[in-house]
Order: sequence, then structure tokens, then C-alpha cells
Amino acid sequence: MTEKLLGSIEAGGTKFVVAVADFDFNVKEITQFPTTTPEETLAKVINFFKFFEVAAIGIGSFGPIDVNVDSKTYGHVLNTPKEEWSGFDFLGTLKAAFDIPMYFTTDVNSSAYGEYTKGSASGADSVVYFTLGTGVGGGAIQGGQFISGIAHSEMGHATVIAHPEDAYVGGCPFHSNHCFEGLAAGPTLEGRTGIKGEKIPRDHKVFDFISYYAGQIAFNTFVNMAPEKIVFGGSVLQETDMAKVREYFKQFNNNYVATPDLEDLIVRPSIKNNGSATIGNFGLALKALKE
Amino acid sequence: MTEKLLGSIEAGGTKFVVAVADFDFNVKEITQFPTTTPEETLAKVINFFKFFEVAAIGIGSFGPIDVNVDSKTYGHVLNTPKEEWSGFDFLGTLKAAFDIPMYFTTDVNSSAYGEYTKGSASGADSVVYFTLGTGVGGGAIQGGQFISGIAHSEMGHATVIAHPEDAYVGGCPFHSNHCFEGLAAGPTLEGRTGIKGEKIPRDHKVFDFISYYAGQIAFNTFVNMAPEKIVFGGSVLQETDMAKVREYFKQFNNNYVATPDLEDLIVRPSIKNNGSATIGNFGLALKALKE
Repeated sequence: MTEKLLGSIEAGGTKFVVAVADFDFNVKEITQFPTTTPEETLAKVINFFKFFEVAAIGIGSFGPIDVNVDSKTYGHVLNTPKEEWSGFDFLGTLKAAFDIPMYFTTDVNSSAYGEYTKGSASGADSVVYFTLGTGVGGGAIQGGQFISGIAHSEMGHATVIAHPEDAYVGGCPFHSNHCFEGLAAGPTLEGRTGIKGEKIPRDHKVFDFISYYAGQIAFNTFVNMAPEKIVFGGSVLQETDMAKVREYFKQFNNNYVATPDLEDLIVRPSIKNNGSATIGNFGLALKALKE
Repeated sequence: MTEKLLGSIEAGGTKFVVAVADFDFNVKEITQFPTTTPEETLAKVINFFKFFEVAAIGIGSFGPIDVNVDSKTYGHVLNTPKEEWSGFDFLGTLKAAFDIPMYFTTDVNSSAYGEYTKGSASGADSVVYFTLGTGVGGGAIQGGQFISGIAHSEMGHATVIAHPEDAYVGGCPFHSNHCFEGLAAGPTLEGRTGIKGEKIPRDHKVFDFISYYAGQIAFNTFVNMAPEKIVFGGSVLQETDMAKVREYFKQFNNNYVATPDLEDLIVRPSIKNNGSATIGNFGLALKALKE
């Protein structure tokens, strides 16, 4: 008998990563291809999984997507600037090809679940995971469940107070310099300095600004949800910036709420090679199988 | 046989309200007394319940309190300016008197649970409830569970962007004008105008400021948790201000996230006479009984 495997679909706006793993999350095969039309891209996804005995699939998708299981359009992509994808029945297309349990959520929720299952937050009961990359997103888990009501979270768009010395106009097309993403996403580095983000020295004050926003959002996250771990993934901040993020958290808190040691609370992901989402999807596949 | 009843303890910083009700939450007896020393106050609480057959008690307390059931100091009052109460074993004292199921949470969580069970959010799966009074607090529920990790939330202290015309220095001793409470709690009305809050005409621009902060926090709440209902209780805002709160939500969102009709999303409590917490405590007593 063929070994049963778990499947992962990391559906990004520019590329898809699909993988299968055994029940200990050891990857057996992984491949990636560019995101083109939904029909063509999903045909490649389906073709990949056809060659395995897949027991369940976890899917982390770019958004916005409908994750409300009670909704008529559950599993669909909602209105997105990628017009061909707007309204596409992502989950339904997969279900028509494979009648197996699937878990459908956002890409950042998948990463959150990965770190919760096997990463920096493993063993914790609650975690909020942020990613600071081209965009900014966040996902929250409590007791194994995602925190979301009628829609998935859009934590990158919560308002932040601007750093008093940061005069940047902001990079968010909807919220300019009023939201976390508008002030802390990767493109804001070049937006402020005219220098590509990866070429800016780490002691440049833009990283101080980003740390200020991350520290502020971490503080807001703690007063809102009090998670055991707050994880900052993505390439904009690095391990060496975490001390500043914790310092700003302290300044915003100003000894108001009691917290764990901030070195334990505010951390980087521990799953290597940007693998948090893939591991998370295997975990979600397992969750779908058990529910 | 005596009828079994549910108990409610609303433990406020200035007064306690204790009540018993039948299993349909019809109040059979209710009384209140000032908050003095923990020993004296709890003696009165215990004396009240001694005369009834109480099946379970729901407790909503002023804070900070330890609500983490895995903690050594679960059920205790934590460090508070009310020194005699700091470290007091609130739940343990009650449990020593009555060996029955009890649910211990914050006062604002009790109100949230009341509106979730029998109020504006009844029938919803998720709600975030804010109260704007002497202080500002918030409580969140999803699928019948409070959203909280290792501590209860302190949502009144999340940061907000100040209204561009609001030059108030802020009323929060920890966060001055950087947090929701510092800019939107009751005392900030008099702080800005020199006039007692209840005497300020409703078309005064301070209520526009408060609505701006409430609208901003409602927007942040929606992008963080996407609850089905956001309820604004307390005496600072009234039904007539809700239109402005919704208008500011719209401005902050700027057509980014899809939302339900804002008249359905952002509402006032519907339980009358500040009864949300008492009703919530009965609901929590029932929950304790079933768990």
C-alpha cells in the first residue's frame, strides 16, 4: 500500500508552493510555480497531488478570501486587484478533484499555525504571528483555533501612531501612513531612503522606525489578546532588531500591564527557510483530518 | 425542595452588586454595598448567598485579576492601586464558603457575555464589547470563549492616533494621550472642557473626538478579530453618537475591508439598567455548571 501523505498549498500572489509530507511533517516532495490564471495554476496544483495518496490538504492563500464556513462563498477568493482571481472558487475546484478533508485559511494564518505547531510558539496555547514583507499581515491562534469572526484578520491595517521623527507619507494605498503596513512594509524602506531595503545598513534609523511600529503593534496585541508568544516573521526585521522592538514595547506599556520576560514573549520564527507556512499547512491538514 | 438559583457577583472598585436568578435569568433578589476591605466586602457577599440554594456563581471583577486557570494565583486580585485588595484570593475565599462551580472573569467580560447571551449580540458567534465610563475596557468572545491568552485583555490601553484637532494632553496616568482610555474615558470630557461630562451638550466637538476614537478602535477591532458585533456600552457615548462612530469607522477603513452594514456591526448594548454584567454573570454561572 502507498504511504498516506499530508498536502500543503502555499498560494502566494506571485508563486505557489505545493508539497507533500509524512505524518511527522517530513517533506517528501515540494515544487513551486508562478501564479498565473486560476485555471492554469490550479491545474498544476491538481497535477502535483495526483501522484500521491494524499489524506488531507492544508491551504494558506493570499487574500482576501472567504474563510467563513457558514458563508455561501466559503473557499472563494474575494475581490482582489488580481482580477482573474476575484470570485474564483479555490476550495471548490480542489474538492472537485480530491474528495478529502481540506483546511482553507490565509497564508499568514498558515505561518502562524506552523510556528504554533513546530516553531517558536510550540508548546504555547496562544500566539499572534506577524509577517513584515512586501505587505504586512497577522494571524492569531488561541487553544488551537484561529481568532476570526465573520472574516479573516487584516492585522497589517490596524492604525499606529507615527514615530515623531518619521515624516514618511506612508505606503498603503488605502491608509497612507495611518496603518502598520503603510509604515512598516518592505517597500517603505526604499520609499523613505531611495535605497533598496536589503542595501540599507541595519543601524539606519528606518529600522528604528520599523521597530517602533512593531513594538507598538506588539503592545496593542498584548493588551487586546495577551498571547503567550508574539512572533515577527518576514524579511524586514531581523533577529538583531528584536531588542529594539522589545524596548519600544516597554516604552508603550510604561509598566502598565504585567508581561512575561519580553525575550520570551517577542520572538522571531524558528522554522528555517521560510518554511512556517508549509509546516503550518501540514498541521492544518492533520487538523482537518481529525475534525 | 428549594429552587436552585444562579448567582452573580459584580465586583466594582466602588461598589459590589450581588444577585440571584432562576435558570431563565429572572432576578429573584439583588443587593449592593460599597467596596471596602476585601474581608468585610466578601463577608457581605457570602452572607447574601447563604440564604439561597445557589447552583453556580458568575463573577465579574475589577482588575487586574488573574484569570489564567493554570496559574498559581488564579482567582486572585493582582497589583492594584486599591492596596488592601492586591494579592487577595477572591475566588479561593468564595470557594471556601461555597463548594460550587464558579466562573471568574473581568467586569467588562461579564458585560460582553451578557450582551452575547441576551443582548445586542445574542445570536452572534463573535462579539467585542467596549465600555466607556470612568475607565475604558473591552472584552472579546468567539464561539462562546473569551479571547485571552495568559492574561485578560486591557483593550482600553491600545494606542490610538489622536484626532488632528484634539490637543488634549490625555488622561491616562500610564499612556497620557497615547491610548484609547487616555483620550476617550469619561473624565477626559471635563479634562478638555472644564465642564462636567453630563452637562456638555451632545453637539460639542468633544463627542466628535470620542466618536473618532471609538470609530478607530472599532476599525482596529474589525481588522484584528472581525467580530460579528461591536458593542459600545457605558455612559460616555449614547445611541445618538453611534452614527458618528460608524462614519469614522468608514473613514478609517476607506473601503479596504468588506464589512457588514455598519448599523448592524456597531451597536449599543440592549440590556437595560446597566444590567449586562449581571445577566452575563448568570450566563457564566450556567457555563461553569456545564463545563
